[in-house]
Amino acid sequence: MPDSVGELGEFGLIGAVTARLPQGPDVLLGPGDDSAVVAAPDGRVVVTTDLLVENRHFRRDWSDAVDIGHKAAAQNLSDIEAMGARPTSLVVGLGVPADLPVSWALGLASGLGDEAALVGASVVGGDVVRSPLVVVSVTALGSLDGGPAVTRSGARPGDVVAVCGRLGWAEAGYQVLSRGFRTPRAVVEAHRRPAVPYGAGVEAASLGATAMCDVSDGLLGDLGHVAVASGVVIDVSASAVTVAPQLKEVASALGADPLSWVLTGGDDNALVACFPAEVSLPERWTVIGVVSSGEPGVTVDGASYGSAGGHDHFAGS
Amino acid sequence: MPDSVGELGEFGLIGAVTARLPQGPDVLLGPGDDSAVVAAPDGRVVVTTDLLVENRHFRRDWSDAVDIGHKAAAQNLSDIEAMGARPTSLVVGLGVPADLPVSWALGLASGLGDEAALVGASVVGGDVVRSPLVVVSVTALGSLDGGPAVTRSGARPGDVVAVCGRLGWAEAGYQVLSRGFRTPRAVVEAHRRPAVPYGAGVEAASLGATAMCDVSDGLLGDLGHVAVASGVVIDVSASAVTVAPQLKEVASALGADPLSWVLTGGDDNALVACFPAEVSLPERWTVIGVVSSGEPGVTVDGASYGSAGGHDHFAGS
Repeated sequence: MPDSVGELGEFGLIGAVTARLPQGPDVLLGPGDDSAVVAAPDGRVVVTTDLLVENRHFRRDWSDAVDIGHKAAAQNLSDIEAMGARPTSLVVGLGVPADLPVSWALGLASGLGDEAALVGASVVGGDVVRSPLVVVSVTALGSLDGGPAVTRSGARPGDVVAVCGRLGWAEAGYQVLSRGFRTPRAVVEAHRRPAVPYGAGVEAASLGATAMCDVSDGLLGDLGHVAVASGVVIDVSASAVTVAPQLKEVASALGADPLSWVLTGGDDNALVACFPAEVSLPERWTVIGVVSSGEPGVTVDGASYGSAGGHDHFAGS
Repeated sequence: MPDSVGELGEFGLIGAVTARLPQGPDVLLGPGDDSAVVAAPDGRVVVTTDLLVENRHFRRDWSDAVDIGHKAAAQNLSDIEAMGARPTSLVVGLGVPADLPVSWALGLASGLGDEAALVGASVVGGDVVRSPLVVVSVTALGSLDGGPAVTRSGARPGDVVAVCGRLGWAEAGYQVLSRGFRTPRAVVEAHRRPAVPYGAGVEAASLGATAMCDVSDGLLGDLGHVAVASGVVIDVSASAVTVAPQLKEVASALGADPLSWVLTGGDDNALVACFPAEVSLPERWTVIGVVSSGEPGVTVDGASYGSAGGHDHFAGS
């Protein structure tokens, strides 16, 4: 096989990529036609899309192709989870420089396919084009399987707020990599590949979650979207938020505040949801706050938090 | 409103764009949450995606933002049509340089939304990120409404081959623009904004089309995909292919062969389909060839055609 995608050509690359992508039970017609056909058993389909641009959302010198594929899939699958849905499929648009190694493109495909397979979803189609820098667009589809869609707008005063999954880990990894380090490995790997709490979205919906979103921009920023959409105040209790010992160690070495990573760091793709107070939550959900009435917004221990805005993809890095 | 998308910010831009996007009857939950929810009435969803990169798939000095939006939507809606399906929705990823005028981004959104509205589809969600050059990813969803998916693999010896929509027009426009001209307007506009024969895909399916695809890479190239997928020979009759007088005029002025534009030019998003010979076709379908058995491939008047390969997105412009 040629070394670069330019030598291999569009159709050659599509063929090589497609061969790495097993098709799951929801796929009625897989890659190779004008469109794919996917099951939508209850007559509804959940859909979300993200665009990742090299040097903005990932760096080829910080993450390998497999990790970037995992991360690109994970952040979209997480958006499906956040509706209380089960991911069924992905379609991927890939822009590649002509000199990109074929092995890189195949690694990306493997990462995308393997992450999707964690939830039984499949990469069912895509597009490959030439681009001066690597661009990856991922669209995920999901099924609610007869259940309710959990939006951001249903939180009610009296609800509790709970989180499932890691927070602050990807930010810690980003801070480490930004300073030129490659360790500690646990946080660097958390930056490279989020650990989405798959299945927790459907679980939350079945437990009666009133509102939910995934934490991609930062806990307080994303809770801010829920607060505004629901017209409520969300107060987070700092003492209830888990700051892992590993994060404390890294923060101490870097002279940083690990709580701020947990409260405002993005890209971990945890899920945060509101539940009626009487709901008994499984162990992987941690109650971190409460919902009350008032001017919509988010507070920490009853007060506004310094850098609570989350990151704006235009302004931040 | 600020002049540039960098000043307006991610959330400001998303808000301004979303305000331009009316939501149609298939939209169960529109923009603003982690994912959208769209109707998939027969329990299946048709999905396709394309990635467009500035200076590769469009040029901002050749086409305005509204035209680029129309074209980006059209080429995806056409891929839904090519399955015999009805487009229901689009999601869009948009990468923008910080100095991009807000008016450009809003124009793109208008073009996307207006093209989708031609078929009753809606832009239901998306992502906006910073990028050094403009990148547009579009994913389209569609419904088969209980009908069969028409793939590329069902053509049978004895079928007729028919085309619906324009061929060669976008290529003529491209040739004109490449030489620095801006007229004739009809072909330049055909390059900027394809005239997809909406509804013809569902029509073909209901008439019993055995195979179908949209003409994005060039008639002979795309028929080649059908021939290989179906394991048949497709012979196109040159005298049956319509070469519009406008194309002849432009080709004469440029010293080019207009038939080659019709046979190999891309981006018009016509539909080409195979039908049992006894089917009575509506007037907008023109029979241009026949299907027979043999070594899979495409011929013109029984012989191979010089530049029949269609364009490879890596090699061509």
